[in-house]
Amino acid sequence: MAEFFNVLPPDEARALLLRQLTAVLPPETIETEAALGRVTAVSITAPHPLPTFRRSTMDGYAVRAADTYGASESLPAFLQVIGEVPMGKAATVTLGVGQAAIVHTGGMIPDSANAVVQVEHTQMIGTETTPPYEIEVLKAVAPGQNVLQVGEDVAQAAEVLPAGHWLRPQDLGGLLALGITELAVVRQPRVGILATGDEVVSPMQAAEPGQIRDINSYTIAGQVRQAGGIPLLGGIVPDDLVALQQAAADMLAQTDMLVMSAGSSVSVRDMTVTVIDGLGKPGVLLHGVATRPGKPTIVGAVEGKPVLGLPGNPVSAMVQFDMFGTPAIYRLQGVAAPPRRGLVWAKLTQNVASESGREDYVPARLQDSADGLLATPVFGKSNLIYTLVNADGLIKIPLNKGGVLAGELVEVKLF
Amino acid sequence: MAEFFNVLPPDEARALLLRQLTAVLPPETIETEAALGRVTAVSITAPHPLPTFRRSTMDGYAVRAADTYGASESLPAFLQVIGEVPMGKAATVTLGVGQAAIVHTGGMIPDSANAVVQVEHTQMIGTETTPPYEIEVLKAVAPGQNVLQVGEDVAQAAEVLPAGHWLRPQDLGGLLALGITELAVVRQPRVGILATGDEVVSPMQAAEPGQIRDINSYTIAGQVRQAGGIPLLGGIVPDDLVALQQAAADMLAQTDMLVMSAGSSVSVRDMTVTVIDGLGKPGVLLHGVATRPGKPTIVGAVEGKPVLGLPGNPVSAMVQFDMFGTPAIYRLQGVAAPPRRGLVWAKLTQNVASESGREDYVPARLQDSADGLLATPVFGKSNLIYTLVNADGLIKIPLNKGGVLAGELVEVKLF
Repeated sequence: MAEFFNVLPPDEARALLLRQLTAVLPPETIETEAALGRVTAVSITAPHPLPTFRRSTMDGYAVRAADTYGASESLPAFLQVIGEVPMGKAATVTLGVGQAAIVHTGGMIPDSANAVVQVEHTQMIGTETTPPYEIEVLKAVAPGQNVLQVGEDVAQAAEVLPAGHWLRPQDLGGLLALGITELAVVRQPRVGILATGDEVVSPMQAAEPGQIRDINSYTIAGQVRQAGGIPLLGGIVPDDLVALQQAAADMLAQTDMLVMSAGSSVSVRDMTVTVIDGLGKPGVLLHGVATRPGKPTIVGAVEGKPVLGLPGNPVSAMVQFDMFGTPAIYRLQGVAAPPRRGLVWAKLTQNVASESGREDYVPARLQDSADGLLATPVFGKSNLIYTLVNADGLIKIPLNKGGVLAGELVEVKLF
Repeated sequence: MAEFFNVLPPDEARALLLRQLTAVLPPETIETEAALGRVTAVSITAPHPLPTFRRSTMDGYAVRAADTYGASESLPAFLQVIGEVPMGKAATVTLGVGQAAIVHTGGMIPDSANAVVQVEHTQMIGTETTPPYEIEVLKAVAPGQNVLQVGEDVAQAAEVLPAGHWLRPQDLGGLLALGITELAVVRQPRVGILATGDEVVSPMQAAEPGQIRDINSYTIAGQVRQAGGIPLLGGIVPDDLVALQQAAADMLAQTDMLVMSAGSSVSVRDMTVTVIDGLGKPGVLLHGVATRPGKPTIVGAVEGKPVLGLPGNPVSAMVQFDMFGTPAIYRLQGVAAPPRRGLVWAKLTQNVASESGREDYVPARLQDSADGLLATPVFGKSNLIYTLVNADGLIKIPLNKGGVLAGELVEVKLF
């Protein structure tokens, strides 16, 4: 594909990439207990209602509501307590007219009862505390009062989770409550990461003059993990077209997505474009995004697999991975609504310049104050990783704003 | 300790617990690559400056800035290009007056140069592209221009991360850039979880009439993982004082924190208080928090270990674990500033009642609209886990508000 040098706004650029990712990765069956952060592969329906039996929401007495009608402190209803529903057991007691049974919170309601009088609204008549004994009911209850109905949480056969749902703690609880102890989830995307650059060496070795240690493989691996993918580090490839073509093809063959953090010089970026186009169709989708940092990002796709060429600057690489890589990882898992990113609004402590027509992300430190949350920009070149280490999030300056003044409220995307 | 029945506001209650947690867990040394989400045990300083050598931020020519003074398109400066700095190598070329060397983005600046002229501001004079050749410089550069100075990212011996720092992708990158490939992190808190209740059975077994499956062990385990702890499930303990005392003591001995999800009936709650008080000093700190759901939460500590007695209702248990358990897990790791929780502001779609003097958390579903983000309450009893499954977050209704009206902006804590 011919290279596009037209620079797209970030939302359009992302949409262009996501449209290429039409297939969801295959499913695998795992234990529900281990499914935190995974994504449902199919819609899940309730095998039975929840709860399966009527339960008391109070400590008190299971009654026939009609027996309490008109009861009040001055004119109590008298009921005979004939038994107790033990916790964890079926309620076997049968109530006749004017009869009640002790029931605890969570306990089963006898078939013959239709409401629960909470113990605070009753009074013992004698000293006998083992049934049979008599009580006064000081307040009437309506049918169904203090009773959890069958299926009130979930009706039988209802869809409890759609396909493409990102699983949170409560979702696991909801599944296990229904006895669903294993489920089909989408396989986690494997994301291959290649660093390129003759000047880049592994952090595990000493850096000689002129050399720098690889940062991007590790920051991107962390971002991949946070999004639910599995990073595969392919190491550092020299600035050589054949070597990079070989490494990229090998890595893409064994993964679901490829990220190259290219050097920053123009010749190296051009090489990345050639490599992506050579991997397969459609190849490079766009070259350049209207953002700072990260304008020279290369976005491509090869037979449904996303391929990104990120700028070598570590700040640009992280911001751009967040913009394209993270949504792609969710898309490969078929996530319908990716988890909402933490956003806070904060008052800017100093002016920040921008250019209209470009979406800027400025690292910022957040601070609580009597005046609300404050955001102070952490300025620094985008090749300085410590601008991000010293920041709590990124101030987003929208496309159509020429800058933001001190005192204005800004949106900060939390890291 | 005598039981407190005074109901505390949540912030005070949390402060009371956290004051008991004075010791940070011991450190262990791990690989930096594997440290995502872990917490630094000690302050970390830079073993050397970053970058260690002066680097070019542009493709262009390393020059002596004075040789370009006054240069412009109409009156260019003429320089002789005498060599090239190869990527990843020390710059060995020495510039005399009027001389320049090819340098690429990220390349090392020769000692004799002090600025870089970007290639776009130069023009080749002849057709020769291998040095030596001559160029015109069309724009003057100042000393230091387009040059990253030694230590501009981090100065030697500067503190790069304090103790108690929760490690994010960029922090790992920053450490590896300095060649710090392993580091001391705080051991992950082990959190013991016990479910109690004669009616509670394992999700792995069939629930008979009167029985319900354990939800809380699994939702809390998920919350523990999200906060960076390691959950240990102790199973289900019958509603029997001696059995619970034994199970709690055993679990606390092998963990750093104990969470009991007690049944909801008053007698079971009283038993939990007795058990916590019997585990050691100070025991129960407070019994009751001014929140809904979750008022009957029991908060305690035993010799520096947090011990929580959560309500049996799954919604209450999750909301209360978030209020006390998550901050305790961070505190045990010595986290100075826990990661900010994602918060969004949304417009309420219907009225929500509350009581002044109580902090309410109402599950809500979020929806984007032309009118901004909308929050719709998911009403339901706090024993219905699916109110949380069907929600995206919790609307917080502050202590001093009697309710919130449709159309008002509310704060929603994201799950």
